[in-house]
Amino acid sequence: MEDEQKTRVSVDIFGQTYTIVGDESSSHVRLVASMVDDKMREISARNPYLDSAKIAVLTAVNSVHDYLLLKEKIERLEEELNKLKG
Amino acid sequence: MEDEQKTRVSVDIFGQTYTIVGDESSSHVRLVASMVDDKMREISARNPYLDSAKIAVLTAVNSVHDYLLLKEKIERLEEELNKLKG
Repeated sequence: MEDEQKTRVSVDIFGQTYTIVGDESSSHVRLVASMVDDKMREISARNPYLDSAKIAVLTAVNSVHDYLLLKEKIERLEEELNKLKG
Repeated sequence: MEDEQKTRVSVDIFGQTYTIVGDESSSHVRLVASMVDDKMREISARNPYLDSAKIAVLTAVNSVHDYLLLKEKIERLEEELNKLKG
């Protein structure tokens, strides 16, 4: 696979630099990184005794929870759409 | 606030035990934890040189990315629904 089409974006998350390689636009990668950074700072503020590995895991837990809520919402919307389409 | 209504669930994620306190059912918390654990193991297998804090941050990045994709899908579905409802 050619790597030339991939974007490489450096972002700062919770004081560390990460290089994210992928197919997404750099603005999308930066948005995602800033959302993760925000969530980590929020969780860290509420739990000042936690180390950054645990803060990151709880951030992931939080994000997957939000993801599942949206998935349920999609199921409801698709059901509603199917009813309307009859 | 009374704490009695909150569930406290202990889960293992990437070899560490976390106690998650919240309003969610314990089965939901366990599902979220196992999804985070799976994602961390997947990212760790692809990047064996990364420490667990970085693996957790990349897992959070991955989850927030998936979250944003669902959010876009919801916008499309809601637009379609609004059109059908006229």
